[in-house]
Amino acid sequence: PASKLPQIGTTIFTLMSQMANEYKAINLSQGFPDFDGPSALLNAVGAYIAKGMNQYAPMSGLPVLREQIAVKVQRLYGNPITADEVTITSGATEALFAAIAAVVRPGDEVIMFDPAYDSYDPAVELNGGVAVHLQLHPPSFAIDWAKLKAALTPKTRLIILNSPHNPTGSVLTAADMQQLIELVRDTDLLLLGDEVYEHIAFNGQVHQSLNRYPELYERSFVVSSFGKTYHATGWKIGYCVAPPPLTTEFRKMHQYLTFATCTPMQLALADILRDEPEHADNLPQFYQQKRDLFCSLMSNSRFTFTPSAGTYFQLVDYSAISDLPDKAFCEWLTQQVGVAAIPVSVFCQTPPEMRLIRFCFAKSDETLQRAAERLSAI
Amino acid sequence: PASKLPQIGTTIFTLMSQMANEYKAINLSQGFPDFDGPSALLNAVGAYIAKGMNQYAPMSGLPVLREQIAVKVQRLYGNPITADEVTITSGATEALFAAIAAVVRPGDEVIMFDPAYDSYDPAVELNGGVAVHLQLHPPSFAIDWAKLKAALTPKTRLIILNSPHNPTGSVLTAADMQQLIELVRDTDLLLLGDEVYEHIAFNGQVHQSLNRYPELYERSFVVSSFGKTYHATGWKIGYCVAPPPLTTEFRKMHQYLTFATCTPMQLALADILRDEPEHADNLPQFYQQKRDLFCSLMSNSRFTFTPSAGTYFQLVDYSAISDLPDKAFCEWLTQQVGVAAIPVSVFCQTPPEMRLIRFCFAKSDETLQRAAERLSAI
Ligand SMILES: CSCCC(=O)C(=O)O
Ligand SMILES: CSCCC(=O)C(=O)O
Repeated sequence: PASKLPQIGTTIFTLMSQMANEYKAINLSQGFPDFDGPSALLNAVGAYIAKGMNQYAPMSGLPVLREQIAVKVQRLYGNPITADEVTITSGATEALFAAIAAVVRPGDEVIMFDPAYDSYDPAVELNGGVAVHLQLHPPSFAIDWAKLKAALTPKTRLIILNSPHNPTGSVLTAADMQQLIELVRDTDLLLLGDEVYEHIAFNGQVHQSLNRYPELYERSFVVSSFGKTYHATGWKIGYCVAPPPLTTEFRKMHQYLTFATCTPMQLALADILRDEPEHADNLPQFYQQKRDLFCSLMSNSRFTFTPSAGTYFQLVDYSAISDLPDKAFCEWLTQQVGVAAIPVSVFCQTPPEMRLIRFCFAKSDETLQRAAERLSAI
Repeated sequence: PASKLPQIGTTIFTLMSQMANEYKAINLSQGFPDFDGPSALLNAVGAYIAKGMNQYAPMSGLPVLREQIAVKVQRLYGNPITADEVTITSGATEALFAAIAAVVRPGDEVIMFDPAYDSYDPAVELNGGVAVHLQLHPPSFAIDWAKLKAALTPKTRLIILNSPHNPTGSVLTAADMQQLIELVRDTDLLLLGDEVYEHIAFNGQVHQSLNRYPELYERSFVVSSFGKTYHATGWKIGYCVAPPPLTTEFRKMHQYLTFATCTPMQLALADILRDEPEHADNLPQFYQQKRDLFCSLMSNSRFTFTPSAGTYFQLVDYSAISDLPDKAFCEWLTQQVGVAAIPVSVFCQTPPEMRLIRFCFAKSDETLQRAAERLSAI
């Protein structure tokens, strides 16, 4: 019988990482660092395993970890949540799926902005919803609030916001948030904030979490990821913060999607949140140096770009180099130049006007240097 | 707006474990061991973390682990699969959800046998399917093949089989499998085998995996769990074995449910599968001793039971002790006697004729002794 997702192949992240391995290219495609998180965090996992902390965590996550997240959300965003508003998930991907599954019913419309992370659309579709794609435009990739307002219908159920934005690096502003507050006032629209890069906004910009605005938080699922913040994308632990009525529905999904998440890693993360809160606070500076290094190394290349405003991704325009479509260009780049990147068109229902690809700069300075050398030679 | 799963509360496992903690009762409710797996396995996780194996695993799972699973499936069940037929998941719960999501469409009927594990029904419902519950009856809890045949309709899409069976401990026989082969012949019925207790069948019974029968495997998702086999339920790593066309659809779901699973733990599990295959082979004997101890300790109690044929659960009838419904009896038992158990009616659409509760005997001999003492005093 036919596939339920006939148009879906293997994600671009898997495809490009595989091709990078095959051609021994420097892998700036899939977003993951080539360095590790704090050693106290790394050591703690083994210690908890040795102590026998190897059985089921509570379904919603370990209280110690949920409490530390509540402390962080209060400290950074002034949202006075409790641990009862936090659910630990098997990565942000599960959290995104669970939030969508919790509220989207057959026929509901879900608005998302292209380029859009590739899991949103299938999650909406599998829950019977209709994905409505609005295009973000370079160079700012800012939301057009009038267009968004015009796209609302009585069937609109959920708006997915992603800031700092993957893959463009754009960051919502305080003015955007005021527009959003206006837009949702007197509606029953729900919001899903994909804020996995919450700690990576540059140039002193303040991350505009949905947590900051009570009028937004009351209708929001806010998703984040320990993998991005602690340089451990392979641990697959994320979380969702949502007000109690939404958390109740969220947990019903989580309970049957994965039930619970890795116990010893939850314990280790609780410790690091408590003992080294400065780790997250230092992340903008840490990644801004990476961004600046990569951009300066690339300044002599024929790629053109505006430095990323957030995330650990840099979008570049390759139209001075090639006429190839972006996917073909990425294949050529991986196979012939030895640097893997992600084509942007795969995140768009309507391909963008520009020839854009994405590099991940969450890499050692030496890796960035070697990659930029190759990229500057073409 | 209304809940998508209005009838769903917190799972009985969470409720009973919470109550056990609150009342400091001995927790024989939620199924998890109070002892650890092989020390080589425990040590390996920290070692891989220290080596920097902390970034995304491939979406389908690490090839080294999938290959070891393929070796095991060939060795134990004679099914000549390759690693391409294996997908690593965030626990068996994710695998069950992904398999159901992969093939169940609105209106499809899914047959399951009560008592049924509590995640099957919501997974079917969230995918628009209709759960058809057939009741298993004590003392054998065997499948009535004529009734199953009569329950088939043109809309039947999937049959969920769970052997060794949680919570009854019953085990499918070779004769059952012949009935199943007859039943599905010349149909396009699909099968989902919940075989998480595959290594825990007693009295020399051979586990009748769907993997053993080519006529069944060609239409099957076969789910297992490292948590059960390696005494690490809190690690939340499971897998699904399915022929290539079903694996393709399964992975489309896995890709957007969780994407990938914990890298250092996958590496550690690959090592232990390769280095200590005898661990799994010794499990029937290991747990049969636990069962025999628990049953002999309980022989002077007023509970009545037939020793479990598989899993690490023992069903007991408490009708000589109390007229309470099973949930109330479990609450009383936890609060007044200091032993937590799981009521069986929560797994049944139609409550069973008997007064049955489930004890988990995956506990140290000392824990079993203390629990049985309390249970024998009532
Ligand atoms: C889940 S693999 C993709 C990682 C990621 O978020 C990205 O590269 O954009
Ligand atoms: C996922 S918590 C429940 C564990 C279990 O399988 C059981 O107790 O039956």
